[in-house]
Amino acid sequence: METISENACFGGTQGVYTHRSESCDCDMTFGLFMPEEAQHGPVPLLWYLSGLTCTHENAMTKAGAQGWAADHGIAVVFPDTSPRGEGVADDEAYDLGQGAGFYVNATEAPWSKHFQMYDYITKDLTSVLFNAFALDETRQSITGHSMGGHGALTLAMREPGRFASVSAFSPICNPTGSDWGKKQFSAYLGSNEASWSAHDASALMAEKGFDGPMLIDTGTQDQFLDLLRPETLAEAAAKRRQQINFRMQPGYDHSYFFVSTFMEEHITFHAEALYA
Amino acid sequence: METISENACFGGTQGVYTHRSESCDCDMTFGLFMPEEAQHGPVPLLWYLSGLTCTHENAMTKAGAQGWAADHGIAVVFPDTSPRGEGVADDEAYDLGQGAGFYVNATEAPWSKHFQMYDYITKDLTSVLFNAFALDETRQSITGHSMGGHGALTLAMREPGRFASVSAFSPICNPTGSDWGKKQFSAYLGSNEASWSAHDASALMAEKGFDGPMLIDTGTQDQFLDLLRPETLAEAAAKRRQQINFRMQPGYDHSYFFVSTFMEEHITFHAEALYA
Repeated sequence: METISENACFGGTQGVYTHRSESCDCDMTFGLFMPEEAQHGPVPLLWYLSGLTCTHENAMTKAGAQGWAADHGIAVVFPDTSPRGEGVADDEAYDLGQGAGFYVNATEAPWSKHFQMYDYITKDLTSVLFNAFALDETRQSITGHSMGGHGALTLAMREPGRFASVSAFSPICNPTGSDWGKKQFSAYLGSNEASWSAHDASALMAEKGFDGPMLIDTGTQDQFLDLLRPETLAEAAAKRRQQINFRMQPGYDHSYFFVSTFMEEHITFHAEALYA
Repeated sequence: METISENACFGGTQGVYTHRSESCDCDMTFGLFMPEEAQHGPVPLLWYLSGLTCTHENAMTKAGAQGWAADHGIAVVFPDTSPRGEGVADDEAYDLGQGAGFYVNATEAPWSKHFQMYDYITKDLTSVLFNAFALDETRQSITGHSMGGHGALTLAMREPGRFASVSAFSPICNPTGSDWGKKQFSAYLGSNEASWSAHDASALMAEKGFDGPMLIDTGTQDQFLDLLRPETLAEAAAKRRQQINFRMQPGYDHSYFFVSTFMEEHITFHAEALYA
């Protein structure tokens, strides 16, 4: 692991690091905010998964998470959204290839060689984080925005027992029924649609749900509502009697101005679960 | 004036607008956060002047000002740092020309045609803001970062009675004694160094000071301390018995991670003056 930068931030440290990922077969970069409390022992970890086109940097600089995380003594990790570099497959579209990993393990060429983002997050980066930093593996929560909201919801439901709580900002809720999903799952996972539902938050909600609290915020003026399909998740969660706070926030859109507005409430929500 | 974008943000609106500037003889872009309270009447205005290489956008997305401004019902304007566009003089260096206006009125060719940033801020943009938005002209304060900290300090002292309070994050404090200043003042104002001191915060402090509270934060690990020369302002302020809170913050550098860390305290500081 190599340190790219470390900046003092809200009494703690905002770092950027690169490391070799076996799963993705390339170097990967991530941001990590460590609160001051980490100097005295392991602290809880909140995962923040980012959306289409983002790197590790967008949320790290624009979501306003560090101040609230510092208040609660929580670390926040900002992974990249895909493998990158020369030799890594890509596509001209913003929503396929680099910057658009969708948090799945690709099975189809040319993507399968590097696009193993599910394993990257749940195994490779997990291993790096808990080996190299003062983080408490028994206290993890997860959140994300848009494609990263999809990632947070699906990882939380697919990895029972790992996350104390899950939240999302304007998540893609039903990729198997959306052009933000069908195109990518077809490319990464192939034409067998039966394999897609294991990465669809609404399908996972119908099948198994999440053993803990969920918080979902989406703006009523989100310009991508037809692609996000929050109604499918709301319906599935209600049918299941899932513990959830599902909110449509009047006037807000899909931007980081929306994310930052509700960041305090999301981090407070996770802190309550992490320190329960 | 043309609206580029408006996003809901912390109960208010983060807008971006362009307008014709007579002083700069070109179109200029600015960001403006208006809190919810502006729907019911004019609100106080905090000016945030940005640093070298920045546009209206950097602080608007990275400084974390909107949430605290919303808490206090204060608007925040994020002006650009120079004229821009084809036909506007520029230089290959990052610290001269576009993105580096230094908040002065250039008198020398080729800069004098467009680089009239002092008048742009104090006249053109002022006029646009108070004509087009629900802003209270009798309640203004000013802050900024680096070159923008220089701008905030010099404008506050040069325009007595206009600003209730002034603060700065890692400001350039003594441009006439720094390579962040001598090069630019020489280009913009010419070789007569006597004209430079009217735009030097430390010289202005020695000459006239500021009739109100000042708050200055600079990181002890700021990589540009030798260029910022905070010691000159500290000395001048102490000699003058200026009301000031001058802080060197241990461990912090020049980045927005530093700015965002102390943004809450700066906005609270200005709110106390604006609502006094």
